[in-house]
Amino acid sequence: KMLGRVLCILLLVGALQSLAEASQGHISVILLGATGDLAKKYLWQGLFQLYMDQVSSGHSFTFHGAALTALEPGQRLMFDVLKKLSCPPDEAPNRCAVLKDQFLKLSQYHQLSTAENYTALNREIEALLHQEGLKEAGRIFYFSVPPFAYTEIARHINSSCRPPPGAWLRVVLEKPFGHDLESAQQLAAELTGFFREEEMYRVDHYLGKQAVAHILPFRDQNRQFLDPIWNRHHVERVEIVLKETVDAKGRTSFYEQYGVIRDVLQNHLTEALMFLIMELPGNVSRAEEVLQHKLQSFQSLWGLEKNSAVLGQYQAYAGQVQEELQQAPDYISTTPTFAGVLIHSDSLRWEGVPFLLTSGKALDERVGYARVLFKNRAYCTQSETLRDAGHSQCKAKQIIFYFGHGALNTPAVLVSRNLFRPVMPKDSWKEAVAQSDLHIFGQPLSDYYVYSPVKERDAYSVLISNIYHGRKDFFITTENLLASWGFWTPLLDSISHQPLRLYPGGVENQHLLDFEMVSGGLAFTLAEPAELLNPTRQTPSDYKAIQSKYRQSPLVSAWSEDLISQLASDMEEAAVRSVARSGQFHLALSGGSSPVILFQRLARHHYAFPWKHTHIWLVDERCVPLTDSESNFFSLHSHLLQSVRVPYFNIHPMPVHLNRRLCVEEDRGTELYAKDITALVANASFDLVLLGVGTDGHTASLFPCSENGLEGAPTVVLTESPVKPHQRMSLSLPLINKARQVFVLVLGKGKHDITTLLSRVGHEPKKWPISGVSPGSGQLVWYVDYEALLG
Amino acid sequence: KMLGRVLCILLLVGALQSLAEASQGHISVILLGATGDLAKKYLWQGLFQLYMDQVSSGHSFTFHGAALTALEPGQRLMFDVLKKLSCPPDEAPNRCAVLKDQFLKLSQYHQLSTAENYTALNREIEALLHQEGLKEAGRIFYFSVPPFAYTEIARHINSSCRPPPGAWLRVVLEKPFGHDLESAQQLAAELTGFFREEEMYRVDHYLGKQAVAHILPFRDQNRQFLDPIWNRHHVERVEIVLKETVDAKGRTSFYEQYGVIRDVLQNHLTEALMFLIMELPGNVSRAEEVLQHKLQSFQSLWGLEKNSAVLGQYQAYAGQVQEELQQAPDYISTTPTFAGVLIHSDSLRWEGVPFLLTSGKALDERVGYARVLFKNRAYCTQSETLRDAGHSQCKAKQIIFYFGHGALNTPAVLVSRNLFRPVMPKDSWKEAVAQSDLHIFGQPLSDYYVYSPVKERDAYSVLISNIYHGRKDFFITTENLLASWGFWTPLLDSISHQPLRLYPGGVENQHLLDFEMVSGGLAFTLAEPAELLNPTRQTPSDYKAIQSKYRQSPLVSAWSEDLISQLASDMEEAAVRSVARSGQFHLALSGGSSPVILFQRLARHHYAFPWKHTHIWLVDERCVPLTDSESNFFSLHSHLLQSVRVPYFNIHPMPVHLNRRLCVEEDRGTELYAKDITALVANASFDLVLLGVGTDGHTASLFPCSENGLEGAPTVVLTESPVKPHQRMSLSLPLINKARQVFVLVLGKGKHDITTLLSRVGHEPKKWPISGVSPGSGQLVWYVDYEALLG
Repeated sequence: KMLGRVLCILLLVGALQSLAEASQGHISVILLGATGDLAKKYLWQGLFQLYMDQVSSGHSFTFHGAALTALEPGQRLMFDVLKKLSCPPDEAPNRCAVLKDQFLKLSQYHQLSTAENYTALNREIEALLHQEGLKEAGRIFYFSVPPFAYTEIARHINSSCRPPPGAWLRVVLEKPFGHDLESAQQLAAELTGFFREEEMYRVDHYLGKQAVAHILPFRDQNRQFLDPIWNRHHVERVEIVLKETVDAKGRTSFYEQYGVIRDVLQNHLTEALMFLIMELPGNVSRAEEVLQHKLQSFQSLWGLEKNSAVLGQYQAYAGQVQEELQQAPDYISTTPTFAGVLIHSDSLRWEGVPFLLTSGKALDERVGYARVLFKNRAYCTQSETLRDAGHSQCKAKQIIFYFGHGALNTPAVLVSRNLFRPVMPKDSWKEAVAQSDLHIFGQPLSDYYVYSPVKERDAYSVLISNIYHGRKDFFITTENLLASWGFWTPLLDSISHQPLRLYPGGVENQHLLDFEMVSGGLAFTLAEPAELLNPTRQTPSDYKAIQSKYRQSPLVSAWSEDLISQLASDMEEAAVRSVARSGQFHLALSGGSSPVILFQRLARHHYAFPWKHTHIWLVDERCVPLTDSESNFFSLHSHLLQSVRVPYFNIHPMPVHLNRRLCVEEDRGTELYAKDITALVANASFDLVLLGVGTDGHTASLFPCSENGLEGAPTVVLTESPVKPHQRMSLSLPLINKARQVFVLVLGKGKHDITTLLSRVGHEPKKWPISGVSPGSGQLVWYVDYEALLG
Repeated sequence: KMLGRVLCILLLVGALQSLAEASQGHISVILLGATGDLAKKYLWQGLFQLYMDQVSSGHSFTFHGAALTALEPGQRLMFDVLKKLSCPPDEAPNRCAVLKDQFLKLSQYHQLSTAENYTALNREIEALLHQEGLKEAGRIFYFSVPPFAYTEIARHINSSCRPPPGAWLRVVLEKPFGHDLESAQQLAAELTGFFREEEMYRVDHYLGKQAVAHILPFRDQNRQFLDPIWNRHHVERVEIVLKETVDAKGRTSFYEQYGVIRDVLQNHLTEALMFLIMELPGNVSRAEEVLQHKLQSFQSLWGLEKNSAVLGQYQAYAGQVQEELQQAPDYISTTPTFAGVLIHSDSLRWEGVPFLLTSGKALDERVGYARVLFKNRAYCTQSETLRDAGHSQCKAKQIIFYFGHGALNTPAVLVSRNLFRPVMPKDSWKEAVAQSDLHIFGQPLSDYYVYSPVKERDAYSVLISNIYHGRKDFFITTENLLASWGFWTPLLDSISHQPLRLYPGGVENQHLLDFEMVSGGLAFTLAEPAELLNPTRQTPSDYKAIQSKYRQSPLVSAWSEDLISQLASDMEEAAVRSVARSGQFHLALSGGSSPVILFQRLARHHYAFPWKHTHIWLVDERCVPLTDSESNFFSLHSHLLQSVRVPYFNIHPMPVHLNRRLCVEEDRGTELYAKDITALVANASFDLVLLGVGTDGHTASLFPCSENGLEGAPTVVLTESPVKPHQRMSLSLPLINKARQVFVLVLGKGKHDITTLLSRVGHEPKKWPISGVSPGSGQLVWYVDYEALLG
């Protein structure tokens, strides 16, 4: 063994010698998992490409394959891979043969298992450099290993293999980086214990795909054309798609844990989305600037809900899982192999534009693209049949970043000829000759300017080159990763027991996986699928909302999302009825966290709500400025008012901040509010009051044993909360009880105890203020979700 | 002569006799202009059709042709027309011959010129009825005469020819009903002096076209399908089109005064638009309900501006006008023969949906239609080539009301098969057999459900039948007419000197008349037309805004529309700059009428304005409640705030209405506002203050000789206006002068004197408060339109 290692070093030394003097420094590349699938398929080839490209750069290189396998068999396995490295077609065969020979001499295998192994590797690198008089430029550790091994390896590298000061360390990580926000945070926290952010290169190989990597440069170089049209006024929709023909066979042990959203949408398609959606940085090659714009874009995205996605599973999948994972025949997988997801941004630029992300296995074709479809803003006066075939403005206008495969079978950028002739960098993209018979996205290829790469490059060779160049903008930072998981995790949670549509696979799928945008979400177009896969546990969300009684009043109950949707519809109905009756609708809303989803739902789904004739009142308020994020009004404004068109005059925040001070009695805020109510609301009888319930039985800001507001006149009162901020303003119980309708919303397991208790007690407002809610001549309805009701 | 008349009466009596007993009463139809073009072409045929349809209705009829021509030649002329009346193909030839014979006997000619003629006519009708013992049911007077004759005839009818009590009078009027709002109002006022509203039947023959008349019934009968999709969320655009191949040759004496907008858009296409756009009445056959919904829809339309339209004129038109109207060879007509107009509604249902109205002469084809194009809301997962040809949701979805001619050559209703199978009344509409080779609106005819009338009926025969039945919903009421002129007149005024694009006519037009929606308006797609027709008087609006100096400060001047557009752009630029610098933009706005167009322009054209970071302050306010239409804030809210997204917290109306009373000093509204400014605006220095100037030199609410606000501290003051409402609140001059930028907007001839005066005086704020505006360290810019500047 020792002999082998010495031999190796001698060989290396031979290969390095010629460069010793000219060297800008030495770079050691350590590939962990050197004999694994990814390494075999892409990474060694990428490293060889790097060597070919950079052999004259002034840097010298050594390549260290590593694995858990012992030296002897590992070495053999690795060199079997290396021998098969191929030369790219545009490389002179002679030069390539020489370089390949050199590359082999510069490569060696290491068993890296114990702490000692790492120490030894470090010693060897140091010895070699010392011996050759080489300055160390840096070390690249490429983690091509399963994520469970990350922490251990990271620890060893950090403690034993850091290069000396002045040289850099770059560790390259492959996905998966967790399977939800929490696990990703945990993994990130662990890695952060060993590496600095700038040392970590998280790979999303889509960022190495030429058409994806060119999205930002394209937007940058074509600012003059895109500036006026890259917005909601011109863009009809954006589709980001990765369709595969293969299925998960042979990979189900991985796939069953992840599914298509974690495998493709959370990373690859999201990155493409970010490049399209982000505000264009002043300098698109400044990684930090790009990152900040990406993070802002994540902020602008609407939260995903259950109905944001349609999900499917190809029929053979269940059998494959049973076989490969040795599951019982009655095992049912709920892992989606197909997903379509609708994403919205509320930025001024993109508000209302649908971004559709779609991916699946066992589909009819293999293709990936991001397609920006523009609105037709033209009217063509001449009839179609008599129209010149030229650049009619009435033809569809699109920009397509074609990732590869499919009908074109090459990465490409396509721009409709009736849009503009794009600026493309001539050294890397060439105009393609149109195959006139080909139709693509509904139009003949001749309708587009088509550009393809001058030299088609494999994603991994692009990425390895970018690691070498320290181009961090091609990699996923921790912040970026967590923002993405933060965005996707709520959807993953909410769909974990959603039914999946079964599809036969391949062209047989026909229209089965077509889907449509329906009231803010997605739904399959064909309403009744041939077969529906229901997960083992029955999904309660399929139940209709339960109608019953609670405390002698009507009760509506369902899982929270369905409950909210029912409540929102009932509120709209109340509003429409009230406006028809009196021309206006006086709505008093409570603060707290429960109504937030309700507000969002009202803002996004109920466009027929008569907002113009609605007055918005507050049931209670915390004594903080209205612009404070603790303010009930602030939350109401963010989640509802800023999205709908309630006239300014109809918005009535509580006057907790008069004369620039908070709830000072002599400022008479309560009187003022009561006067406003008397002046505007007929008989001070609100059309609808929305209440919540605290775990202590409080409602509005009326707390148990409160001195004010539980009885007496129908008025507005100052109260004290047991929790901060203590000072509150609230409608009094008698005022609430004058309302025509009162809806009480109760959500979550945390409210189960109080819900149970309240079902047993009578009218005891001093103990439980909510029990005093009993509209004199109005109607009370309880909206309680299953978790609060059933625990 | 007398003999002839007696003969006529005898003949009539013979024809009437058989019906005398069964009669529900007698109807006299008097066709004025009985030998004119319209009568020859449509009206007599329509009356004959009415007779055929109603001969057994129990009513008896006489038909009185009338004209200025003397009895003898008139009689001959009229009977020449009557002899040519044809029987419809579905009428039994025998029955028809008999009925035609009867119809001729029931018809007679009258010279109606003098008052005596009318009295005589009335006597004859009375005599006849008396003689036959017939009860009078009603009289129809059909005005097929030039509009200048209307008043005279109306006077005679009113004074001499009214039927006795218990019988109705219906007068039928043909367009043109004026050529703008004023002339239409005048004509309407004159007619109203003679007839009651319910007696007047204004014809728009489009309302008699079967496909137009079926729009409302279609919407009514298909409520179940249309309710969810007949709105901005589903409708992409609506096109309402009448294309003609003929030109105006032989009619230029009429056409030259009217042009395509008055001839077709103001009436025919607007009526179709109303049927599509109106909220659906509960009962679509109740005329009053339909009218109210129509009027509401007119209210919801955005005002048209110069750039709402594209205009053209076919090349041969000028020559035709010169020849027919004997104009000098250098005479240039500015009458458009082609127009495309973009219309928007701000109703919740239609906000943002473009309605494109287009009509022209000398185009490539003759066709009329209203086309509702729906958004594609589907994603089809299967690639096009592998997709089933069936009802893919990815194909275009449309509903087309096809008025006639064109490729179909029949009225029709078309509904895309992937939308729904419409409910159609089987007795009047039949499903058409698809001509599979025909393509229409981009799709094969087989993609649609196609319905055509069971019996194709001429518009005039439909209308005459509706007059008989008293169906007023098929006619244009005075309110409707004036609403339409009120909508179109501002456009007609603003385009009267616009350049027209010349087009060769017919298929040669190619893409020359294609147009596009561009920043809120329309523009021809081909930017540089082959030839541009400039009207004789140079159009000053083509000038670039003049840059110069006024009172030692920069001056921007142009015609008002261009000036406003420049000012809006400059404001946006200031806002963007300010937000980039400080994260916010503090904008103080003035009241008055001048800023209204500015506000509208900002709301509709400047979507990149950073509203989210803008604070809106008032320069001055009237002491009225904010919801009072006199309030400056109310106007600002209606025209700007309700259309943009300024956060509630950033909106700062002046506190003129504290404690529910107006500008009471002890409520300290001025102090409060000053405190708010100090708290939020750095250094109390607004980023931009927009001012106006009164004819007395006042600015803000600072009037000449005011005791407050002209000097002293930078603060907020109460002032007195010489005009009502007297009490005002205003920023003081010293506070205004702390601003970073002050823009002063001066519009209109009425401001010419003060503009001239101010150019000569120095700093004399006591006399002319505006002369005291001079920002200490900020910039002052004057925006003065040509009318104010040049008089």
